[in-house]
Amino acid sequence: MHKAPLYICFFSIFFCPSLKAICQFTSQNSHQPKYVLVIHGGAGNITKNNLSDSTAYKEKLTEALEKGADTLKKGGTSLDAVVIVIKILEDSPLFNAGKGAVFNSEGKNELDAAIMDGKTLKAGAVAGVTTIKNPITAARAVMDKTIHVMLIGAGADKFAKEQGLDIVDPSYFFDQKRWDQYLKNKDKSSIGDTNPIMNKYGTVGAVALDIFGNLAAGTSTGGLSNKKYGRVGDSPIIGAGTYANNKTCAVSCTGTGEYFIKNVVAYDISALMEYKGWTVKKASEYVINKKLKTQGGDGGLIALDNKGNFAIPFNTAGMFRCYASSNGETKMMLFK
Amino acid sequence: MHKAPLYICFFSIFFCPSLKAICQFTSQNSHQPKYVLVIHGGAGNITKNNLSDSTAYKEKLTEALEKGADTLKKGGTSLDAVVIVIKILEDSPLFNAGKGAVFNSEGKNELDAAIMDGKTLKAGAVAGVTTIKNPITAARAVMDKTIHVMLIGAGADKFAKEQGLDIVDPSYFFDQKRWDQYLKNKDKSSIGDTNPIMNKYGTVGAVALDIFGNLAAGTSTGGLSNKKYGRVGDSPIIGAGTYANNKTCAVSCTGTGEYFIKNVVAYDISALMEYKGWTVKKASEYVINKKLKTQGGDGGLIALDNKGNFAIPFNTAGMFRCYASSNGETKMMLFK
Repeated sequence: MHKAPLYICFFSIFFCPSLKAICQFTSQNSHQPKYVLVIHGGAGNITKNNLSDSTAYKEKLTEALEKGADTLKKGGTSLDAVVIVIKILEDSPLFNAGKGAVFNSEGKNELDAAIMDGKTLKAGAVAGVTTIKNPITAARAVMDKTIHVMLIGAGADKFAKEQGLDIVDPSYFFDQKRWDQYLKNKDKSSIGDTNPIMNKYGTVGAVALDIFGNLAAGTSTGGLSNKKYGRVGDSPIIGAGTYANNKTCAVSCTGTGEYFIKNVVAYDISALMEYKGWTVKKASEYVINKKLKTQGGDGGLIALDNKGNFAIPFNTAGMFRCYASSNGETKMMLFK
Repeated sequence: MHKAPLYICFFSIFFCPSLKAICQFTSQNSHQPKYVLVIHGGAGNITKNNLSDSTAYKEKLTEALEKGADTLKKGGTSLDAVVIVIKILEDSPLFNAGKGAVFNSEGKNELDAAIMDGKTLKAGAVAGVTTIKNPITAARAVMDKTIHVMLIGAGADKFAKEQGLDIVDPSYFFDQKRWDQYLKNKDKSSIGDTNPIMNKYGTVGAVALDIFGNLAAGTSTGGLSNKKYGRVGDSPIIGAGTYANNKTCAVSCTGTGEYFIKNVVAYDISALMEYKGWTVKKASEYVINKKLKTQGGDGGLIALDNKGNFAIPFNTAGMFRCYASSNGETKMMLFK
């Protein structure tokens, strides 16, 4: 009996990095990595037709991934890696977070962000802020410097200023592409509309496992395009869009925020793992592709467990996503 | 053998309303009631020494309980009962919700509320509002009239006005007792303080099961006394302070909000029931008296399952709480 084809098959899987990466993209890791970083730049109707040139997105995500992974490699904490990654994406006008955030119905940018520490369960969040250059740093300051979890509106802006964070004029967040989008949809209402004007591209998030075995999760967004009345989505809600717990996993979500809030999605992944013993992959797939899909809620999430296994399920046409780990694996995907 | 004492014992249990009530206060109901209503008016350092005259509290809670139970008896929905109850408590200066809310660090009242429908999983919440007479009605309008879940700040106030809800001048919420409390603590900071100035009395909430078998939960609060920087607690956060799902239970929380957010308390009760098969009593007791207590988080909650069984655990000295059901049971308790 000729065994050569079998050897070739094994050889291919073990020594071809891309094949190995594909196999492990949403699977359990057989060799536990020392550190892992998973990033998303939003889920939505991301197809090759809609995004003819993805070079800039890939470059920016690669930059964030490399800086974040380098932090973890050098012994930085998962919290530090999450903040470094999200700051880079907030500073880029390509994503709906920080500079380049969508405009609300009054032509203003209102930003939300959250971060959570899986080791201590400490968390910080800001919502509806307008002058903080990097909302993720304000979320971190809420977590590190106060007894509170969530600060909103002008109070949160004031807090960030007092903490010495980078404060900008609201005009800093202006982006022509977003402004054109705002003008186009200005007279349409999203309130009560069952088919709202949404921009599901671009919420950014990161989950990380550091060499100390600690998990962290963070999310930052400009929310819904042309949103009215101080609408807040899932990103800054601990348990909905952001959650981390060393016992189970770290999660960051993107999509139709209301469905993620009502289904307490980020914590639900953790609860399914803790209470039913499910893997991070099974729990994440179930919540995104069964629970949410049945209800009509679209989006995706990144979820990373305390052994370095992760999942990136989404029920939309595409999702900006990439990861890197101490095992040398690195991968970027945009479409389904 | 003389059986008289045994008969007397059975007779006492079956015909003495108060004994019967005590037996079932946090237990499984043997006869499934058609409707049940459970109310809280906050947990905290409520002792006989601190509250020498509790008459007014009892009267107001009784009024809310009776109106709510009457609604359910007449075939009203659990959502209607929850709103009716909470409106009455918001209108009373005795509780830290609506009129009589605590003042923030700038001497203003900022109010939060949330409601959730266990049948549809629809939810509505407002945070940081200043002109809505009854924030619970605004939360209900967000749920009923919009595709959103959470509106904050001036946007939420504007929305409520456009919806024709009762709008008041911010001075309406003034209460001398709360003002004196504010002045007393004005120069103390709560930010970063591990022993903050808190007023844990008075957040109000209700959970109800109606004759159609539908659950609902609602919570309303003025938040933390002398709170700074637009701090938001657990009350308006779906999954943290408020949650309802016909599959499991309806929950409304009160206490140190930050611990309830980080532990996603309201949804955690539901997850323990759904994923581990625990009773509402076991799940609630575990979360309040083990999980939260270990972390130093104090407070309590009311939780009602889809069969009419309920639990009211708290790890503080007291909690304003009462309930009524179609079985004719009614009970009010303040202290441990």
